[in-house]
Amino acid sequence: MRAIDFNLDPSLQACTHYVTSLSLCDVLLMNDARFPWLVLVPRRPGMVEMVDLPSELQQQLWHEINHVAAVLRDAVPCYKLNIGALGNITRQLHVHVLARTENDAAWPGPVWGFGQAEPYAEGESDARIALLKSRFTDNAS
Amino acid sequence: MRAIDFNLDPSLQACTHYVTSLSLCDVLLMNDARFPWLVLVPRRPGMVEMVDLPSELQQQLWHEINHVAAVLRDAVPCYKLNIGALGNITRQLHVHVLARTENDAAWPGPVWGFGQAEPYAEGESDARIALLKSRFTDNAS
Repeated sequence: MRAIDFNLDPSLQACTHYVTSLSLCDVLLMNDARFPWLVLVPRRPGMVEMVDLPSELQQQLWHEINHVAAVLRDAVPCYKLNIGALGNITRQLHVHVLARTENDAAWPGPVWGFGQAEPYAEGESDARIALLKSRFTDNAS
Repeated sequence: MRAIDFNLDPSLQACTHYVTSLSLCDVLLMNDARFPWLVLVPRRPGMVEMVDLPSELQQQLWHEINHVAAVLRDAVPCYKLNIGALGNITRQLHVHVLARTENDAAWPGPVWGFGQAEPYAEGESDARIALLKSRFTDNAS
């Protein structure tokens, strides 16, 4: 399932845990216990902007974003989903999907650039990843 | 083209100028001269989350987001597109599409919640709206 020549950007690698692979994207958990925060990365080398993906891959990407958002909302407390494709610092195409609650650290502001990440304690990320993995179906594969 | 019972949220109305209507969304220009900033609002009453739209409307929304992003990038200087669906403050479903540059006021952070909006001078928003309107095709209609 891994496209030839695709390598995850080291800055994304450094701040995430691997969760699962969908047909186009790898799904990663941001290593920040303040927020339930997933990141989708299409396994296509050299991509920066969604609009530059071939149209069938754009469609697949949005399908997977919606799938990941639905899974996340069902798995954790969520008052509002936040979806963002920024890439101002790490240009490799990636899309954030977050479950926000009214008492989270950054509410109601955006999470990007907010304070310092608080890495998961040992075992805590494994539990969250296991929960999420069990909810992903092959609907989006 | 306006769905019965759809009303733009007053807080979105207050901070935007109308640009055009696509088949699902109204396209608005954020009244903030610091950033080329468009907002898409699906004309469907009561919608909050993208994942709760019927699947054909989800697909149409993503099609229109990509169309708006491509139009914006072609019309103004753009180093990186930023696309975001937050809705933490205004829950009516709306999607932000921005053209970011490395010397803009909030770079490389997100624009949401950053400082105070700087309204366009009289005539300035009209010029930007006219430019954008001329670039929208009915591809997304």
